[in-house]
Formats: sequence, C-alpha cells, structure tokens
Amino acid sequence: MFTPVYLDHNATTPLDPAVREAMLPWLGVRFGNASSRHEYGRAARKAIDEARAQVAAAVGAHPTEVIFTSGGSEANNLFIKGAAALLKPGCIAVSAIEHPCVREPARQLVRQGWQLDEIAVDGSGRVDASAFEAVLAKRPRLVSTMLANNETGVLQDVPALAAAVRAQGGWMHCDAVQALGKMKVDFRALGVHGLTVSSHKIQGPLGAGALVVDKRVELAPLVAGGGQERNLRSGTENVMAIVGFGKACELATRDLDARSAHLAVLQGRCEAGLAQLGARIFSADAPRLANTVFFAIEGIDGETLVGKLDRAGFAVASGSACSSANPEPSHTLVAMGVEAGLARSAVRVSFGVGNTTQDVDGFLKALGENLASLRTLTAMAV
Amino acid sequence: MFTPVYLDHNATTPLDPAVREAMLPWLGVRFGNASSRHEYGRAARKAIDEARAQVAAAVGAHPTEVIFTSGGSEANNLFIKGAAALLKPGCIAVSAIEHPCVREPARQLVRQGWQLDEIAVDGSGRVDASAFEAVLAKRPRLVSTMLANNETGVLQDVPALAAAVRAQGGWMHCDAVQALGKMKVDFRALGVHGLTVSSHKIQGPLGAGALVVDKRVELAPLVAGGGQERNLRSGTENVMAIVGFGKACELATRDLDARSAHLAVLQGRCEAGLAQLGARIFSADAPRLANTVFFAIEGIDGETLVGKLDRAGFAVASGSACSSANPEPSHTLVAMGVEAGLARSAVRVSFGVGNTTQDVDGFLKALGENLASLRTLTAMAV
Repeated sequence: MFTPVYLDHNATTPLDPAVREAMLPWLGVRFGNASSRHEYGRAARKAIDEARAQVAAAVGAHPTEVIFTSGGSEANNLFIKGAAALLKPGCIAVSAIEHPCVREPARQLVRQGWQLDEIAVDGSGRVDASAFEAVLAKRPRLVSTMLANNETGVLQDVPALAAAVRAQGGWMHCDAVQALGKMKVDFRALGVHGLTVSSHKIQGPLGAGALVVDKRVELAPLVAGGGQERNLRSGTENVMAIVGFGKACELATRDLDARSAHLAVLQGRCEAGLAQLGARIFSADAPRLANTVFFAIEGIDGETLVGKLDRAGFAVASGSACSSANPEPSHTLVAMGVEAGLARSAVRVSFGVGNTTQDVDGFLKALGENLASLRTLTAMAV
Repeated sequence: MFTPVYLDHNATTPLDPAVREAMLPWLGVRFGNASSRHEYGRAARKAIDEARAQVAAAVGAHPTEVIFTSGGSEANNLFIKGAAALLKPGCIAVSAIEHPCVREPARQLVRQGWQLDEIAVDGSGRVDASAFEAVLAKRPRLVSTMLANNETGVLQDVPALAAAVRAQGGWMHCDAVQALGKMKVDFRALGVHGLTVSSHKIQGPLGAGALVVDKRVELAPLVAGGGQERNLRSGTENVMAIVGFGKACELATRDLDARSAHLAVLQGRCEAGLAQLGARIFSADAPRLANTVFFAIEGIDGETLVGKLDRAGFAVASGSACSSANPEPSHTLVAMGVEAGLARSAVRVSFGVGNTTQDVDGFLKALGENLASLRTLTAMAV
C-alpha cells in the first residue's frame, strides 16, 4: 500500500490511536439514541456528557456552554445565522481572511437586510487596526475573526478585538478550529461570545464539532426538531464521533508545550530549507501557529507542484484545502495584497505531531528535485 | 455486561457487522479531506462517490441527486428552510403527525411570513382526504408528508399526495427515514421533489443522512462555506459515516422481502400476545410498517411501564424516542384524536432483523408480570 508522507494536517488529521480505542465500542456492542429512556439511551447520554466535559475543559468553558454540531462549518454557520435570525438586521463584520464557512453565511445575511463589512488585513495577514476601528464605528451587531488562519497560520489578537466589540455592544465570535491543539485556547480569556472548535483537526473523527456559546446570546437553531443540545441543534446525537471528539480534546490539550515545541522544530527546519531553495514564506514575520508553512516559489505553479509532490509521496496543499476544488488563488493571500501570480504559486505544508525531521528532509529533497525538473521544462518552453 | 433485549429500532439501530467492516479502515490507516488534491484526498473522494451510488441505488435516484447531510433532521431542515429561503413566502403544509424535525422548521418559517397548515389525519393516522383538499386549495408552495410514521408505523399514500401537490405547482417533500429498509422506497415512483433518508435507522452509523432532491428545486444551504455537496452542504465530508451509510443502504434494500416477512412474523406474534393482555393497538387497521407495534393498556402509565420493562431487560419506547425528553403525550396520537389519558399509556415496540420470536415471547412475559404488579399497586392505592 502506497502511504505518502502526510503534511496536510490543517486539512484533516489521522485519528489518534487512543481516540480510536475510545470510539470502537460505539461501532460494536454499544449503541443508543441518547433521548431513549432505557439502558441503551442512558449509556449514550452518559458518554455524551463525559465528552461534553472533556471539550469544555479543553477550552476553559462550562459544559453547558458546549453545543455539539456536525463540525466546524456548522458551528460557524450556527453562530452567525442563528444569532442574526433573532437580531434586527444591522452591520455584520468578518475579517477578509475568514474561512468560507464564516464568510459565506455572513454573505447570505445580506439578502436579509444586513450590511456586511469584510475587515481588511495587513501584508502579514493580521487584522488592520484602522480598518477595524472604521468597522467598529458602525457598531456591528456581529463580528467574527478567526484565532489562527488555516492557510498562513497567522494569529489574531482576539482578546483585544473582542474587548472592543463588547465595549460597543456587539456579539463577538471566533473560529478557533485551526488553533485548538496547537496553542492554548481559553474561552474566557478570549472574551468572545461564541467559539468554534472541530474534532477532525485535532486527531479526532470527522462528524463532530462544537459551538461554545455565552448563554446571553440567543440563537435560532439551524437544525430544528427534537430539541437536542438545549434546543439549539436537533438530531440524534452522533455518539461515536462525540466520544472521539471528547477524547481528542483531552489529548490535544495535554503536553501542549512539548508538542508545540516539536512542531516548531519541524517548521524551523522546513523554512530554513525552503529559504535555500529560494522560496518566499508568507507571514514569516507575524505570530503564527508552530505547524504551518505557507510558501511560494516564483514562477512555479502551486497546483502543479502539489501534483508533483503527491507523485513523489508527499501530501501537501495548495491554497485552502477545504475549498481547494476552487481554482481561484487563495483569498487570504489576495487580502494580504499578494500579487495574483505569486498567490498561484502558493503551497501549504502543515505538520502534525506524528511528523519527523526525516519527513521534513524528505519533503525538501523531493521539492528540490521537482523544482529542478520544472525549471528545466519552463526553460525549454521559453 | 447487562445487555437488554433491544426492541427500539425506530429510535436507532445497532451497526450491521458488514457496515462496521466497511467503516473500520476509516478509523485507521485511511483518512483524508475529500477536497484535498493528493492521494489521501482522492481516496476519500472515491469512497464518498461509491457511497453516493449506493444510496442513490437504494432509492432509485441518480447519484447527483443525493446530498449528504449529518442525518435525517438536517436533511428535513435543508429541504424545508432551504427551499423556502428562495421562494416568496406563501402557504406551507405539513401533516400533523410529522416528526418534530419537519414540524419545527415549518414553524420557524412563520416568523418569515409563511402561513403554516398542519394537515389533519384520521383516527388511524392517515392524512385526511378532505383536510388535504382544503390545504391544496390554498396552493401551498411547499408540502411535506412522511412515508411511514415513527410511532405508529402508518404509511401515507405519498404518490397520490405528491401528484396532487405537483398538479398545482408546489414542491413536495417526503421524510422516508422510517420507511427505508422496511419497505420499497423509490424516489421516482413517489413522485416527490425531495426525499429524506437516514443512516442510523437502517443499521448504519449515526452522523450520516441524505436529502435526495430534484434539481429543479433551488435550495439555499443551511451550512454555507467550502461548497461541498454541490454547494448545498458545506463542511468536510464525514467519510467514515458516509461509507457506512452507503453500505447500510446496499444491505437494507437487499433481501427486503425476506426481512419484511420476518418482521411481520414478530409483529403478528407480539400483537396477538398484546391482545390477550387487553392492550389496544394503535392504527391496527391501517397499512403499517411490519416492524412497529404501538399500543396502550388503559390505566397503566406508559413511562412507568417502559421503566419497569427496562429493569426487566427489554428496551422499548414511550412516545417518540427522538423527543422523549418531552413529557407531553405523543403528538401523533393527539392528532389521531386519541384521548390524552390513553395516549399517556402508549408504549412503542419496534423490531429489527436481529430480533427473534424468543425476544417477543420474553417481552410479552415480562409485560404480563409487570402489569400484574402494577395493577396490584393501583388496586392498593384505591
């Protein structure tokens, strides 16, 4: 079996073996609808309650503040559309580099009478202070900025942004999907009203995520029905995925410093090698996640390079993996003012705890070889 | 380990071992974001495509008509709210016995200017012909009726209802969550524009469902973002659950006649025994699913009986499992005109293919014993 080296952890991650162990009983003898009032139902409810406590502990929230969803996209949509449904239309502001599952629901609100502002970022991908001030002056009812960007890994000063939004009476939401497990994520310290986290980015299963939400925020459910999750998310709870998510949260916040240090070593080694190959590292001067390397080599198409590396046994991404069916250059880079040609050269490497320095060296070697052959081809074409 | 006899298959079902086998690789070496353009991503995409073909085949649809969701509740909400979002508000009609995940989204539309009609049913739980005619006269833009009721198992004549709705220009939706795997479900023969199916009711995993949808129906996504599922349901696809759902669909429609015959034997044996114990069987005279027995014993509280049976090792439901956190009597029975006192006595038994005649006999014996002790208590209290 061909098993390429996986360097695309910002897209999704392999299951942690301990997460798998926690889930396996729920593929076998254990099953149940958590709403059922018999032994099977009670066991499912208990497992969900335990997972809820694990998720809450991982982000410093109270278990009753955790609303399980099918994933991060749904949690982001739930906060934005769910809060907007119960507010008078007004101004909503999201940063220009948000994931599509924040930007698109915000855009859907425009049809319902909302005014949308996309907050500009500077050349390194941080929210621009004066653009943010200008948006604040419009007294937005809803603001959403991510904690860590999925492409560049750049961090925003969410506590400061949230304090400013709170001060003028708006609800502040933060997409922390990429941050969890790679840095400390604390619901209270961030000072936000809503926080999105996702299981499959932290070596948990697909199919689970959560919106952590301040109970003062009234939300209309996206999925209405049986009244599960405090009536905010109906549908029979996906026990297996929720149990795995809980375990993954427990693991992701344990030994965080040691794991971050390991990732930083890989990142540093990778970026040193890339510099020797003439690559430009995006957002190199900004505070970033320790696992992400977003780079471009001028004149080399990113998609082509990703294909070559795939055949050489290295799985990396061009642009944002979650929307890479889209051939447009990365909207994050465009928002950062990166010229479209260079943006089309972008390639993202995102490490996981299972990666080694050998993986980095192998990747750099394969990259160097492919660059040589691509440049020969380009020279021949000229 | 205490393993009660499971007689609550309309709430959720145990995984079929073959489904588990299909899923297990996706908890191990196989993982990937289906949007990723490398080996891992392509393998995930291929697995999803195969599952989509399996689901489509099970309901006689084209694979491109299948939109994967996190489950039945989300699929029902997607059709109702997704279609309504792109229509001018008008009349929406759903039967009075729909699952809450149809009734509640319909009710949410009222705030947006829609007029909601709940179509009355007769004493056996079938849509009342004159009530339906009266609703049709209002030219509803959206109509939803379930194929099989989750509590009584009663079937509706969906092809006839759908033809009438189509004739006056409305979109017709059908929740077939309880029907799939227990009877033939054919998207074209039903003549509906949208059809909801769910994985965990057919021995597939929780976390997957589908809306099968006629492409003429324009839908706004509930979860907007990366553009997955033809832009109708964003979010990284839950490959493991989708793979399991596909396999469960394949199995659920194979040997359907033999399995239905087995269920009918259990149902007949159970109802004969219940009659001897003085039970009233709801909807006994209507066309019903072969696996469902909904009954009441006058003067005996359903919740109390479910608790007694649970302790005796038999897992059954009172009212609708999916909303059984709700102490109200079954809305289905109320709609059928059943007096509230008798409705509070209701107990549901729902068989699965794994159940045996021994399970039925054991259940009837436990029921008889508990009835005797409950009647003694009642007599003493008087």
